[in-house]
Amino acid sequence: MDEQLTHFNEQNRAKMVDVSEKAVTKREAVAFSKVVMSKETMSRIKEGKISKGDVLSVAQVAGIMAAKKTAEIIPMCHPIPITGVDIQFDDSSEDTVLIEATVKTTGVTGVEMEALTAASAVALTIYDMCKAMDKAMVIGPTYLVTKTGGKSGDFSRESMES
Amino acid sequence: MDEQLTHFNEQNRAKMVDVSEKAVTKREAVAFSKVVMSKETMSRIKEGKISKGDVLSVAQVAGIMAAKKTAEIIPMCHPIPITGVDIQFDDSSEDTVLIEATVKTTGVTGVEMEALTAASAVALTIYDMCKAMDKAMVIGPTYLVTKTGGKSGDFSRESMES
Amino acid sequence: MDEQLTHFNEQNRAKMVDVSEKAVTKREAVAFSKVVMSKETMSRIKEGKISKGDVLSVAQVAGIMAAKKTAEIIPMCHPIPITGVDIQFDDSSEDTVLIEATVKTTGVTGVEMEALTAASAVALTIYDMCKAMDKAMVIGPTYLVTKTGGKSGDFSRESMES
Amino acid sequence: MDEQLTHFNEQNRAKMVDVSEKAVTKREAVAFSKVVMSKETMSRIKEGKISKGDVLSVAQVAGIMAAKKTAEIIPMCHPIPITGVDIQFDDSSEDTVLIEATVKTTGVTGVEMEALTAASAVALTIYDMCKAMDKAMVIGPTYLVTKTGGKSGDFSRESMES
Amino acid sequence: MDEQLTHFNEQNRAKMVDVSEKAVTKREAVAFSKVVMSKETMSRIKEGKISKGDVLSVAQVAGIMAAKKTAEIIPMCHPIPITGVDIQFDDSSEDTVLIEATVKTTGVTGVEMEALTAASAVALTIYDMCKAMDKAMVIGPTYLVTKTGGKSGDFSRESMES
Amino acid sequence: MDEQLTHFNEQNRAKMVDVSEKAVTKREAVAFSKVVMSKETMSRIKEGKISKGDVLSVAQVAGIMAAKKTAEIIPMCHPIPITGVDIQFDDSSEDTVLIEATVKTTGVTGVEMEALTAASAVALTIYDMCKAMDKAMVIGPTYLVTKTGGKSGDFSRESMES
Repeated sequence: MDEQLTHFNEQNRAKMVDVSEKAVTKREAVAFSKVVMSKETMSRIKEGKISKGDVLSVAQVAGIMAAKKTAEIIPMCHPIPITGVDIQFDDSSEDTVLIEATVKTTGVTGVEMEALTAASAVALTIYDMCKAMDKAMVIGPTYLVTKTGGKSGDFSRESMES
Repeated sequence: MDEQLTHFNEQNRAKMVDVSEKAVTKREAVAFSKVVMSKETMSRIKEGKISKGDVLSVAQVAGIMAAKKTAEIIPMCHPIPITGVDIQFDDSSEDTVLIEATVKTTGVTGVEMEALTAASAVALTIYDMCKAMDKAMVIGPTYLVTKTGGKSGDFSRESMES
Repeated sequence: MDEQLTHFNEQNRAKMVDVSEKAVTKREAVAFSKVVMSKETMSRIKEGKISKGDVLSVAQVAGIMAAKKTAEIIPMCHPIPITGVDIQFDDSSEDTVLIEATVKTTGVTGVEMEALTAASAVALTIYDMCKAMDKAMVIGPTYLVTKTGGKSGDFSRESMES
Repeated sequence: MDEQLTHFNEQNRAKMVDVSEKAVTKREAVAFSKVVMSKETMSRIKEGKISKGDVLSVAQVAGIMAAKKTAEIIPMCHPIPITGVDIQFDDSSEDTVLIEATVKTTGVTGVEMEALTAASAVALTIYDMCKAMDKAMVIGPTYLVTKTGGKSGDFSRESMES
Repeated sequence: MDEQLTHFNEQNRAKMVDVSEKAVTKREAVAFSKVVMSKETMSRIKEGKISKGDVLSVAQVAGIMAAKKTAEIIPMCHPIPITGVDIQFDDSSEDTVLIEATVKTTGVTGVEMEALTAASAVALTIYDMCKAMDKAMVIGPTYLVTKTGGKSGDFSRESMES
Repeated sequence: MDEQLTHFNEQNRAKMVDVSEKAVTKREAVAFSKVVMSKETMSRIKEGKISKGDVLSVAQVAGIMAAKKTAEIIPMCHPIPITGVDIQFDDSSEDTVLIEATVKTTGVTGVEMEALTAASAVALTIYDMCKAMDKAMVIGPTYLVTKTGGKSGDFSRESMES
């Protein structure tokens, strides 16, 4: 078949990029997201009174489990042996939960997608657990904060929260 | 055990709410997200020249498959027999891809989370496929646009894009 | 092929039993498990000082998510639209966490396996989060407590805890 | 967004077709596949002497579990409440295992894909368990034999084995 | 965000512990479980006459596949490249199936959870396949028997069966 | 238990073979499949007019995602860190789509099953997206074309297409 193989639709072809030659290094990525809600919803979260349970505790678990599912959700993502995930919250505002997801690996590809997926799953879970009282919540912006390790160099951006 | 069962940590307990008594009705939800990027990245997407493949085509598939995975990602979500998913894009801007995910079901719970999860997975996939050239892309805001069907009534919000 | 089909290994053949003719009814099952540990481990759980986080809160989420995964874990289990899951703990003992998992559905098969799987996942998660300090913990016995709904009739057993 | 929404790439857009209006009926599909191998491999299977275990028994379980995973593997497939799966073998030939997978549901879409996916997973598992001794095995042809139930009518084809 | 980040709920925060610095070594864990049942059920298992198929053969496959799913089921578990799984039974008793699951890896974390999860899935599958005739079966106790490899040292306990 | 453990059913026992001692090397496998259909269906695929979307684009994504799921679908398969997947088509015929799936890894086991699973998922997805107009499509034969890397040596077979 090889001889007659016309690289069908070459420019549009989806593939999982070959990373066989990339070096195994320690890598870390931090992603940010947030959920903006009504003050009442926010105060209910702080009081732990949402009927589905302690919102942030469940959302943390969701984020960590989603980080492990990243390669199942993002089609061209390589499966990665994650070595650590940490989810942190800042709930000092009246109407916003800030989310920071840190993911580490020792592998051949970065963990930007794992961090972004974790942060997104945390935000979606917060939405899910509060939606009975507040469907107008808004998720994001969601973005990469820092990325270290790997040949393409480090990345760091200013926080959009000020 | 039942007599001695102290409802441990009653106010903080996570549970999947019982929906056995809810009626089976047709339901639909529409969620919105977007990805803001550099103009160069945007023009590469339109030209179909991102090395991982045709970005929006892959992202559509990712969104549809993620909708089916919602109950695996969001801990307290009920498993739902999705009857339809549609992902649409608006790429008429110079630097932003707008994403709209519509999910339908005939079931006992709404599909808000399925629509929001689909829209998020689409955005994350766009990020993944373009991140080699542009790590500063920003996802969202991501939010529910409309929801119809079910006892809690319809929901509709003004678009945040103007 | 049909004519020549010898029902290979008829008596040993694994199959998912046909439930097409069974009635859709409300069903509920309650399963029990427990984890016996050292008094020190138990007191650390109560103080919330295990380094991996609040043990019972994470275990609850694990149990609920595992209930939804039952048909993926148990080969001959039918996929079931779970309508509710509740996990409760009794931690009044000095060295044992009692676990009770209740699962509901409106469907054609019972949810015994979902309740037993949830209880097992809760116990395994407690083990996981405490194993750095106590590898000798013992899980179980794990058993069905009650089952209601469906043609085969209700089931109820005496608790083995006394 | 709706007004400005250009139906991007309308003709190429992937979507999960809306089946909300379709009737719930009993449906069944039967798919066929086979694995052709060396006579020596075939006789080892019959003797149950493949080092990884009893080949056909494992393959049956794989097929049943794969049927339940169909909507995760095939992007546009609707999730379906499978009500029964049966895998049967004909190993009367000297060099070929014939595979027949029957899947049933009571739902809004057919189970052709579930039957074909089950048959494929059975064949792949046979390959996996025998590949240490025979990498030249050939899977298929794999095809739909019959399909009943649903508005589009029944389907039946002549067996390609003769 | 980092400056303002209050480590919300520090003592209760769930996280996947960072194992980036741990050494890659060969590791093995053995877990035990059992299922106690009526003598009639036990004799039916031995005769291979349970209607769902050869019980122990299906349960073995379930245990092996569950070992691979451990990091999906146990929230804080690291994904691990399992290098071997073996499930063994002792059915010499009149009313009890003894289960021993051995899991191996070459990695940075132990495989205790994989072995315990495999043993639990085996036991749950035995329950599932026999529950039509015996709902009073009891699973467990389930516990770690031995663990070798890794910095925390080896672990071994006396069997609880005597 | 160890002393009394009778290696139940030794010859029929399913296990995941221990690969702890195998060397980590670069490995690659190429698998082939095809879908034979009516000329009308084939011309509709080329025109991109199948109602579910651009068939081959969706099938490529399905194949890549299925490669990552191989160890979930094939019971005795080891989980593998895939480093690259490429799916190519030849659609130059009037009635047949040829499929070639290439999978790479750097690991202890080969990727034959990943390549075969990817090719099968591609073929199944093509079937799914065209089945509304053509249920008589035939998948396969599906087979391994080449395999390189690993102790068991390279493998290569002549194409069955001529």
